[in-house]
Amino acid sequence: MPNPPTGFQHGITLRQAQKIATAALAEGRRLELAPLTVVVLDAAGQLKAMLKEDGCSLMRPAIAHGKAFGAMGLGFGGRELARRAQAMQGFMNAFSDLAGGSAVPVPGGVLVRAANGNILGAVGISGDASDKDEAAAVAAIEAAGLTADTGDSA
Amino acid sequence: MPNPPTGFQHGITLRQAQKIATAALAEGRRLELAPLTVVVLDAAGQLKAMLKEDGCSLMRPAIAHGKAFGAMGLGFGGRELARRAQAMQGFMNAFSDLAGGSAVPVPGGVLVRAANGNILGAVGISGDASDKDEAAAVAAIEAAGLTADTGDSA
Amino acid sequence: MPNPPTGFQHGITLRQAQKIATAALAEGRRLELAPLTVVVLDAAGQLKAMLKEDGCSLMRPAIAHGKAFGAMGLGFGGRELARRAQAMQGFMNAFSDLAGGSAVPVPGGVLVRAANGNILGAVGISGDASDKDEAAAVAAIEAAGLTADTGDSA
Amino acid sequence: MPNPPTGFQHGITLRQAQKIATAALAEGRRLELAPLTVVVLDAAGQLKAMLKEDGCSLMRPAIAHGKAFGAMGLGFGGRELARRAQAMQGFMNAFSDLAGGSAVPVPGGVLVRAANGNILGAVGISGDASDKDEAAAVAAIEAAGLTADTGDSA
Repeated sequence: MPNPPTGFQHGITLRQAQKIATAALAEGRRLELAPLTVVVLDAAGQLKAMLKEDGCSLMRPAIAHGKAFGAMGLGFGGRELARRAQAMQGFMNAFSDLAGGSAVPVPGGVLVRAANGNILGAVGISGDASDKDEAAAVAAIEAAGLTADTGDSA
Repeated sequence: MPNPPTGFQHGITLRQAQKIATAALAEGRRLELAPLTVVVLDAAGQLKAMLKEDGCSLMRPAIAHGKAFGAMGLGFGGRELARRAQAMQGFMNAFSDLAGGSAVPVPGGVLVRAANGNILGAVGISGDASDKDEAAAVAAIEAAGLTADTGDSA
Repeated sequence: MPNPPTGFQHGITLRQAQKIATAALAEGRRLELAPLTVVVLDAAGQLKAMLKEDGCSLMRPAIAHGKAFGAMGLGFGGRELARRAQAMQGFMNAFSDLAGGSAVPVPGGVLVRAANGNILGAVGISGDASDKDEAAAVAAIEAAGLTADTGDSA
Repeated sequence: MPNPPTGFQHGITLRQAQKIATAALAEGRRLELAPLTVVVLDAAGQLKAMLKEDGCSLMRPAIAHGKAFGAMGLGFGGRELARRAQAMQGFMNAFSDLAGGSAVPVPGGVLVRAANGNILGAVGISGDASDKDEAAAVAAIEAAGLTADTGDSA
């Protein structure tokens, strides 16, 4: 039975989020990355799907959430957040507080966009170096047929 | 490549947690329940896997987390927490505060035990009536070959 | 210029929310109610519009928010929350904590539904007796051409 | 009927706050800015009026509140807060914590002053670049016949 309509559907679907989460971990294994945590947020900023690989250190889930939530909160990928944290340190400190302490301005927070540009949600990955975390997020979003926005212009 | 050993492995494995999360949602669809959110915590009390079905109302993720975290925090299934909330209301209010506001003493928070009785983690489900949420959790834990502890003696 | 598409549109529109907020205060004056605070949340649970009349006591904004957020969080109007608070006190205490302390289970939290039943947001009003707060919310939602759900069946 | 006197009237009136909120959004559309959120606080630091345009990214309401609350909290406009955040970083981090995480030291938080210099409240706007957010706030405060204080001497 399909879920009844409630209006509580914000951007990304469960099917898309599950695809992204499992594809991200598969990409991590393919690239032989350190254990990863992947968080997928919907367009309301809520957890839609989350997976933590065995062996992740304790703060990986929080870091992955902060990467995704920071990107979602400002509507920019993590690379743009990193630039702003350099240029406007006071603002980014305040922004982290506004976000309840969950806003991490580094690569690995990636917006998920539809073909028309609409932001459907965000992915945050933590476990290996930020660039590699980000690569796994981008590969996973594309595997789901969606567009990844890292905060760099293409 | 298998994940490198780090010591950061607390009870339930990712494979088990994923199986539980997907089986719980499948059971929800089979029983035609309202949209469900399922949270799986490891033995360190951290998120291991999480899935939110399309159509869940806004607080379902928080409630599912609170059911699992309350159970994990005291080492009892949600039915025992519910009994204690009746008998010791002041304690349960304080416990909720201790848990950062995330402890929900109702059915649907279910411990995951190994064959030898060790607690591997906990599952929290929210979306339908508490009894039905719990039934989906029990079915999913058993589908993963593990033992469900609802807080009632068998 | 119309706002650019971003995907960040969750249910109720600004135009609808403004209409509800101003109509609620107009109804309050028509009925000669005590000074009211009206909060309109969107389907992501965020503030969409808010107005506080001159003379409101200090906690009126927090109470109005809690009425709306409680309704939005569970997907029920405040009358159903009030019934559950009677029947399941432990759950509602925990739910208030989950909601960051902002969930008030009394009349005056009213869901805003579209013609197809989808939940577009919620209105919370505080200032006079709960029944009168609720009457102002219902009148305002209907003045905006939308459907009010108080938590009682019609 | 006029509202009864209660003593709970702190500076700005509802009529002034509504004028500012709607004029700020009108100015944003006239200047073709990105979608804006406008928050108006009274002299007790509480929400008096708030409007969020369709399309605002998730943290805009929090940022707008933090701009206004930071200004109100210290009694300086956002430009002075930004200077202090440069010169006294440790203090501004602590101030953000004192403010419950809601103090954003950048332009766009603007004090509302009466003709005699008394602070009646503060306006915070977020959505576009800080300078443009601030320009919309200043225009709106002046449209309401009041004096805008950005933190720069005139």
